[in-house]
Amino acid sequence: MSDRAGPSGPPRVETTTVRVRYAETDRQGIVYHANYFVWMELGRTDFLRKSGFPYPDLEAAGIVFAVSEARCRFRGAAEYDDEVEVATRVREVRSRSVVFEYELRAGERPLASGETTLVALDVERRPRRIPDELRAALRR
Amino acid sequence: MSDRAGPSGPPRVETTTVRVRYAETDRQGIVYHANYFVWMELGRTDFLRKSGFPYPDLEAAGIVFAVSEARCRFRGAAEYDDEVEVATRVREVRSRSVVFEYELRAGERPLASGETTLVALDVERRPRRIPDELRAALRR
Amino acid sequence: MSDRAGPSGPPRVETTTVRVRYAETDRQGIVYHANYFVWMELGRTDFLRKSGFPYPDLEAAGIVFAVSEARCRFRGAAEYDDEVEVATRVREVRSRSVVFEYELRAGERPLASGETTLVALDVERRPRRIPDELRAALRR
Amino acid sequence: MSDRAGPSGPPRVETTTVRVRYAETDRQGIVYHANYFVWMELGRTDFLRKSGFPYPDLEAAGIVFAVSEARCRFRGAAEYDDEVEVATRVREVRSRSVVFEYELRAGERPLASGETTLVALDVERRPRRIPDELRAALRR
Repeated sequence: MSDRAGPSGPPRVETTTVRVRYAETDRQGIVYHANYFVWMELGRTDFLRKSGFPYPDLEAAGIVFAVSEARCRFRGAAEYDDEVEVATRVREVRSRSVVFEYELRAGERPLASGETTLVALDVERRPRRIPDELRAALRR
Repeated sequence: MSDRAGPSGPPRVETTTVRVRYAETDRQGIVYHANYFVWMELGRTDFLRKSGFPYPDLEAAGIVFAVSEARCRFRGAAEYDDEVEVATRVREVRSRSVVFEYELRAGERPLASGETTLVALDVERRPRRIPDELRAALRR
Repeated sequence: MSDRAGPSGPPRVETTTVRVRYAETDRQGIVYHANYFVWMELGRTDFLRKSGFPYPDLEAAGIVFAVSEARCRFRGAAEYDDEVEVATRVREVRSRSVVFEYELRAGERPLASGETTLVALDVERRPRRIPDELRAALRR
Repeated sequence: MSDRAGPSGPPRVETTTVRVRYAETDRQGIVYHANYFVWMELGRTDFLRKSGFPYPDLEAAGIVFAVSEARCRFRGAAEYDDEVEVATRVREVRSRSVVFEYELRAGERPLASGETTLVALDVERRPRRIPDELRAALRR
């Protein structure tokens, strides 16, 4: 069972801003690539919060999201102190997983685009259904 | 111009062992996913060293490798103190880029498979050719 | 040559808020201790910005601050999604170094207190004087 | 109740080698300072293992060590691919806490010296006594 997000009109996009930390740069003078995956998580966490389902509340209710796949195409280089905008949207909501998409930019400069698949697990890390209200909120 | 690696026989695989650090775990009790990309880098760095081209020497010679694409499929969960084996091989060598593939496991437990595309840049971060000797060494 | 900061009245305190990232937690369910040092850096960077000397501008002008000593006493445990307040002030300004002090809390909960000594270096990493305007701004 | 370690002769020193990762460098071209605290943890974890008490076993037995204080004096700069030696020893063993000391160097180059105080907690994060056998092993 799978639905494309946003059956009517374009999907909702939420934007999260992250200022680049010194610790995130490497000796090439730019941001070390693995940190983009951390920023994508900040994007989807913020998306969930703005959807009315803060992720800490989900975990407290016994729903853990685990990343089952992650990818990123790097187009530009984020630099120290840049204000990076992470634009997050839901591409697909399934009964037990969600696919998020991300576009990252610093001002006009495109940095990267990425996507992650999250699977819902219970506290014993077994796959579980995503509650209907959450699925509905993600599609909105 | 592109060649599949290993025209004769299966491609060379180099294995690198990484012990999971406490700092790499998260509150789910397992390793935070972005760290797998750091381990893949340890794998390809080790592969380069074993190919006779330590990466620090490459940078000293004006060749920077930048990650242009990275992906990972997560199958299992690495835990604190696990000895993770990163099996690295070259899937494709092009004139200006290389694709590495990785299989990660902890003992018999499969953890993840991933791939990264690296593009060769000069010191001003412009694309440049990969020297023939290095391309040959990567294909071997 | 050394002056206690704030010769008249209490020293200026600047507060910076950091929301705890999932990546910063560890398997004890709380924040991994080394991350507090990253947050202290966010505090002093913000302090410098509010003093009229954004750190990127300092580096562009050939002044690098290197940490020569860092310490932290941990009193409480920051948790995922906490809004951590880093209260930063300057304890001492010397001709070539600055000592910053930090108090970290999450709401009413004290988390840690720390201090770092930063030495001013030139682009070749040799010790250099801190410009008078910057020293004055830090004392204000 | 407190005993200086090593009542007879100099305290035992265990050495752990860490190769510097690209992810650990920053845009100054050297290792970001907070990573030294991660390496110190690798040092004390290794010390515990060599003492016959691997830290994962301690946690499984309900003993958590939490860092209550950490400090580091930075003397040199670790660089990418350096093999850093962390020399760890126990300075003091108390009934509920242990103080570890560290000397870090890369070949002949001194990098840093540090110390951390660890307090023993039970699974509910309440202070608890360190078992006698462990205290004895740490003093040996």
